[in-house]
Amino acid sequence: MVGAGQLARMTHQAAIALGQSLRILAERPDDGAALVAADVQVGHHTDLEALRRFAKGCEVVTFDHEHVPPDHLRTLAAEGVPLLPGPDALLYAQDKRAMRERLTGLDMPAPRWAPVSTMDDLVAFADRVGWPVVLKASRGGYDGKGVWVVGSAAEAVEVVGSPTPLIVEEKVPLVRELAAVVARSPFGQVSAWPVVETVQRDGICVEVLAPAPNLPDDRAVQAQEMAIRIATELGVVGILAVELFDTGKEMLVNELAMRPHNSGHWTIDGSITSQFEQHLRAVLDYPLGATTALAPATCMANVLGGASGGMAFDERLHHMFAAEPTAKVHLYGKSVRPGRKIGHVTVLGETFDDVRARAARAARWLSDAAE
Amino acid sequence: MVGAGQLARMTHQAAIALGQSLRILAERPDDGAALVAADVQVGHHTDLEALRRFAKGCEVVTFDHEHVPPDHLRTLAAEGVPLLPGPDALLYAQDKRAMRERLTGLDMPAPRWAPVSTMDDLVAFADRVGWPVVLKASRGGYDGKGVWVVGSAAEAVEVVGSPTPLIVEEKVPLVRELAAVVARSPFGQVSAWPVVETVQRDGICVEVLAPAPNLPDDRAVQAQEMAIRIATELGVVGILAVELFDTGKEMLVNELAMRPHNSGHWTIDGSITSQFEQHLRAVLDYPLGATTALAPATCMANVLGGASGGMAFDERLHHMFAAEPTAKVHLYGKSVRPGRKIGHVTVLGETFDDVRARAARAARWLSDAAE
Repeated sequence: MVGAGQLARMTHQAAIALGQSLRILAERPDDGAALVAADVQVGHHTDLEALRRFAKGCEVVTFDHEHVPPDHLRTLAAEGVPLLPGPDALLYAQDKRAMRERLTGLDMPAPRWAPVSTMDDLVAFADRVGWPVVLKASRGGYDGKGVWVVGSAAEAVEVVGSPTPLIVEEKVPLVRELAAVVARSPFGQVSAWPVVETVQRDGICVEVLAPAPNLPDDRAVQAQEMAIRIATELGVVGILAVELFDTGKEMLVNELAMRPHNSGHWTIDGSITSQFEQHLRAVLDYPLGATTALAPATCMANVLGGASGGMAFDERLHHMFAAEPTAKVHLYGKSVRPGRKIGHVTVLGETFDDVRARAARAARWLSDAAE
Repeated sequence: MVGAGQLARMTHQAAIALGQSLRILAERPDDGAALVAADVQVGHHTDLEALRRFAKGCEVVTFDHEHVPPDHLRTLAAEGVPLLPGPDALLYAQDKRAMRERLTGLDMPAPRWAPVSTMDDLVAFADRVGWPVVLKASRGGYDGKGVWVVGSAAEAVEVVGSPTPLIVEEKVPLVRELAAVVARSPFGQVSAWPVVETVQRDGICVEVLAPAPNLPDDRAVQAQEMAIRIATELGVVGILAVELFDTGKEMLVNELAMRPHNSGHWTIDGSITSQFEQHLRAVLDYPLGATTALAPATCMANVLGGASGGMAFDERLHHMFAAEPTAKVHLYGKSVRPGRKIGHVTVLGETFDDVRARAARAARWLSDAAE
């Protein structure tokens, strides 16, 4: 796996159960996955030589993130390195303009959008859909970075004047956000987890509710079918997460990710097969596992670095374990910085009121040392 | 963790979620846990210098097996190495005579027993309880090794003539075997999982049913109380597994283990907190996690090396995944040898008929490449 963040760290846990050994390409020896895996190479994912050395002897190479340059991916593929997902699929998770063009071609419901090179492009689009609009860097954005909501031409001047390739999207009046996560194998088998609701704060996912509360069955199936169709049409292998805007009337595709995704972390504790195991089964072309949820209501809450109240992290962990013995904690081996995702907690139960309260309380102990 | 077998391998998985890094003392670099952990030292658990080097810098040292010589443990403890469980507790998992004497002192229900040095000792005991009797090596036995059922003095001559210290026990007319698994922290908190039934074949546990089917609630509580009392009286820290003979009338203590135990493997997939996480929480003195079962019926089946029908292991795994998408597989990174435990599978469901059938089928695919 290229990249050694928390996704690689949790994939390594899943690899162990499958009798596998995950090789990791880490930027730094203290990256989260590098701290816990046996077979770690240090090198940068933009260094073609480092990628070549890393790939030598790997049965298959897969990814913790989308940041390997597409040209490197094509070079490696041409040299016979087995990359999954492959460069042709992965491009649609790397390049928002390519993704929007492709999904438009598939008639997938999506926000209205346009490529933007000049202020004239932007103003013409906004005149059509109305301000505010959402500017997005076509490449490299994540967790709210590379996204600008602009209410007027004046507010957009700096972004549009930069050399970053951009697209613009209408600002959809959404009720909530959903995610449909599926996995696809080279054989063509696809499996879907229950559709989840993702609760965002400041552009960062803070909570995932599984299955999405009060989502009618036909809408859930529709979202799963959209994700299955995208995975199949784009030739994805491994996990595909489709982030959706739920406007109350329809579901519009927001983003794609082709790797284990934050909206699927609940599956480690809440589903028969976790997204990390499923990603490995998919890229290794094993039959996929059951995606049944283990409880009527599951809540995953991200733990963000916060105000610690002067309390050491280890002491906060003690308090959290004492306060919530049912919370499943997953720590990423990262130092604490404000707003940084340092772990997550998952709680299973019968009702969303209950699991949200317990998960939020556990996450607060770890973030802020507060009840 | 001293020892690098499957218990250390699965403990490492649990350590990752807790944000920890498990250091492993492996006999060989290809031991199951050594293949997947970042911090591995190669050295033998009977080599005091290797143990000393290993322990340096560890917050706490715990164990994958009971085979570290008690004298070494006492030396390390005297030198200030934090060992959990400590030597005084661990002795009762290392030495069956010491265990029997201690539990007799606690008035714990147990088979009648006696130490054996000579044939006269043995014959006197057998005259009292009746043949056949069970001879056990006081130290070093496991999985049926070091246990001899003898029907007459003549059958016992060779064993009693050897230099191995022995005890003898009556052969209890048992209905089935049970196990009560608990964890205890230095603070003194103890938590108990549901009592399980362990199904044995040729002295090896092949299947665990959780919770033990048709065990009346008062008997289950009685078994848990026995385990809690033993853990507390013996000062155990970490997991204590108490193997019990169920005679239909009473429950008698058979063996003790002070480490994650085969009878607790079902907890990885079947309980809120796994025995591996709980062992770490206990030895690190964190509050313990909830031990609730996630399903009404869970079956864990060991995968033993068997007749492969000429089919490569990886192909068997494909068939197993296709046949049983609900089976959770845990492979130990071991080469296949007949009768060797190479992994286990766990199935959750509503009835024991169902989960036993699914687990047995999955285990058969992996052992014998047969439906």
